Amino acid sequence: MNKYSRILEAVRETNPLVHQITNYVTVNDCANMTICFGAAPVMSHAVQDVCDLDAVASALVLNIGTLDENQIEGMLCAGKTAAKRGIPIILDPVGAGATPYRTQTAERLIDELPITVVKGNAGEIGVLAGVAAEVRGVDSAGIAGDAKEAARSLAREAGVTVVMSGAEDIITDGVRTLGVGNGVSLMGSISGTGCMANPCVAAACCVAETVDACAAAMAALGIAGEKAAAVSSGPGSFKPAFFDAVYNLTIEEFEASAKITEY
Amino acid sequence: MNKYSRILEAVRETNPLVHQITNYVTVNDCANMTICFGAAPVMSHAVQDVCDLDAVASALVLNIGTLDENQIEGMLCAGKTAAKRGIPIILDPVGAGATPYRTQTAERLIDELPITVVKGNAGEIGVLAGVAAEVRGVDSAGIAGDAKEAARSLAREAGVTVVMSGAEDIITDGVRTLGVGNGVSLMGSISGTGCMANPCVAAACCVAETVDACAAAMAALGIAGEKAAAVSSGPGSFKPAFFDAVYNLTIEEFEASAKITEY
Amino acid sequence: MNKYSRILEAVRETNPLVHQITNYVTVNDCANMTICFGAAPVMSHAVQDVCDLDAVASALVLNIGTLDENQIEGMLCAGKTAAKRGIPIILDPVGAGATPYRTQTAERLIDELPITVVKGNAGEIGVLAGVAAEVRGVDSAGIAGDAKEAARSLAREAGVTVVMSGAEDIITDGVRTLGVGNGVSLMGSISGTGCMANPCVAAACCVAETVDACAAAMAALGIAGEKAAAVSSGPGSFKPAFFDAVYNLTIEEFEASAKITEY
Repeated sequence: MNKYSRILEAVRETNPLVHQITNYVTVNDCANMTICFGAAPVMSHAVQDVCDLDAVASALVLNIGTLDENQIEGMLCAGKTAAKRGIPIILDPVGAGATPYRTQTAERLIDELPITVVKGNAGEIGVLAGVAAEVRGVDSAGIAGDAKEAARSLAREAGVTVVMSGAEDIITDGVRTLGVGNGVSLMGSISGTGCMANPCVAAACCVAETVDACAAAMAALGIAGEKAAAVSSGPGSFKPAFFDAVYNLTIEEFEASAKITEY
Repeated sequence: MNKYSRILEAVRETNPLVHQITNYVTVNDCANMTICFGAAPVMSHAVQDVCDLDAVASALVLNIGTLDENQIEGMLCAGKTAAKRGIPIILDPVGAGATPYRTQTAERLIDELPITVVKGNAGEIGVLAGVAAEVRGVDSAGIAGDAKEAARSLAREAGVTVVMSGAEDIITDGVRTLGVGNGVSLMGSISGTGCMANPCVAAACCVAETVDACAAAMAALGIAGEKAAAVSSGPGSFKPAFFDAVYNLTIEEFEASAKITEY
Repeated sequence: MNKYSRILEAVRETNPLVHQITNYVTVNDCANMTICFGAAPVMSHAVQDVCDLDAVASALVLNIGTLDENQIEGMLCAGKTAAKRGIPIILDPVGAGATPYRTQTAERLIDELPITVVKGNAGEIGVLAGVAAEVRGVDSAGIAGDAKEAARSLAREAGVTVVMSGAEDIITDGVRTLGVGNGVSLMGSISGTGCMANPCVAAACCVAETVDACAAAMAALGIAGEKAAAVSSGPGSFKPAFFDAVYNLTIEEFEASAKITEY
């Protein structure tokens, strides 16, 4: 096994508990993907509940896809407990740049919590990096200049690892930069592919160094997407096939197919 | 291409952004169906977020399937922004007639907002039209008298286009009345077929006259349902097949199969 | 037909309306499973809505999987209306034992409402029975001593029927105890199998004595799971196959495959 496949194996062996405060659009897919990846999901948003959960969880995912004030309160409580315990916190700033509320909340969470990973599309990462970028609804509508440089810049300024999803996923902590070339366009034709990656990234961060962990998770999902697309006839049949492919992905397949580049 | 197939083509070409404030039961299916139909979904309900979204969205869907006070507040804010910009607003009065809260909220939204389309089952439309009708949970339990006439009456009184779903869907603005004869009973054996139609109707209304737009969207979904049912062995396998069929529906298939009657 | 298969038949004939206040993770699967089982779902949580719904519903499901204060308020209102009408109330104490908020809310609902059935995993039931048990997130992490005895003890103390899901499901009202040996491990690899059972148990309780009803519903789902697993290649393909199998389950198949033991 190489260092990336060992990460997948370690997740499956340790079954990390991933607490997720996430949007109600793709939450079921996130729960199922967490299981398929070898981890255990628990969803909860209420301040009365989240601190006790994060006192035992292995990682925390914050996804602002359908944000409201109660959820922000829950995210801050959960994040503070997670911070005390030093567990990985993954932030998906869904729609940052589309509305001030989303942008400001993403910035606030980055300011107030020791976020480990910020994972978004090029538009979202660009907006948070302070470069010219555009987000339409929850989709990237472009970023000016060098996207890789924007990711590095956000990583350095915010002290996080950035995962910028795209045709090639870019992963950087501001020093090391990896590219992951796996994936397939059909993954963009279902809602929530990005959301589903969050708990997988979170689980991987429980068992390995962050940049490597993110690359392993993104490559595994990309390979599974490629396998699923090969047996699908559209987004509807792709989704169950995608879950199956993640669940059934072997270490051998992963090692034979992962396209991880060190820049 | 005829005038209906041109509408489908135009949606696919322009990829309208459809903001949806909708129930948490079928929200994932709505997001995925929006994509399959060629449009782009964004879900959000918080007053802090919705006005900024509707400042750029192409259409707004209001679905009262799991209503609460926060959601009503969000619907009114979003609707007012949508009204200023003149974008189509689609209301699905889920369960109107089943409880006073749902009936009164549907009536309030129709009163306070320039709703473009009210889309419901015969029971819901009947209740809002003021005729004897019954709704059991979220299902129509019958309407007294001529359903078509009830739809026309609501259309005229409320100044909206009514889409009344059923074995034959009825679409009327009070002057013109169209019937759409496509569809299959298995569509009623999954939760959310009606909900999923809302963003499709909304997207179609962005590119064409409202009555024609509704007919094109409902016919496309009905045809896709027929195709999906032919390869399904129950509601479970029907759902992914339904998404695939909408995604893969060609203009030729649509024109060969659409059953749209002008009454 | 035997007394268990008659229950399935009676549900399909009477199509009971099952009001569900449930978590947003698996709510769509619950709605679809309700339909596949032959009942009708309606989801709603707002105090303004729930009393009017429970004035007509045939059964009520309370599932605390993603709890907050609004939902508790809705559950108490709905439960009081359901109590007045004497309809079955099913409580799924998801994650009781994982956090004090969940444990205390489950206990409060049992105290304040005439719950008919408490359905949970061994950890949850153990915690509520006051024996040493552990819950990790939403999964059972073990129970000390005799699980069957813990179930009986909770049943007697709380005056409820307990359904304790597991490799063998245990159903007891404190006097009679049944075991259901149907099911397959893949059911534990998707999120929400337990949640989906709640509306089926609820619907069955509308048409028969409670212990028998719970056994019939759990056996039907277990058999459907076995059939679905036989044609699945992972959790993704299992889920649609599971819905199909419940929908298509015949009385003959049920009678040939049900493994119900009277202890």
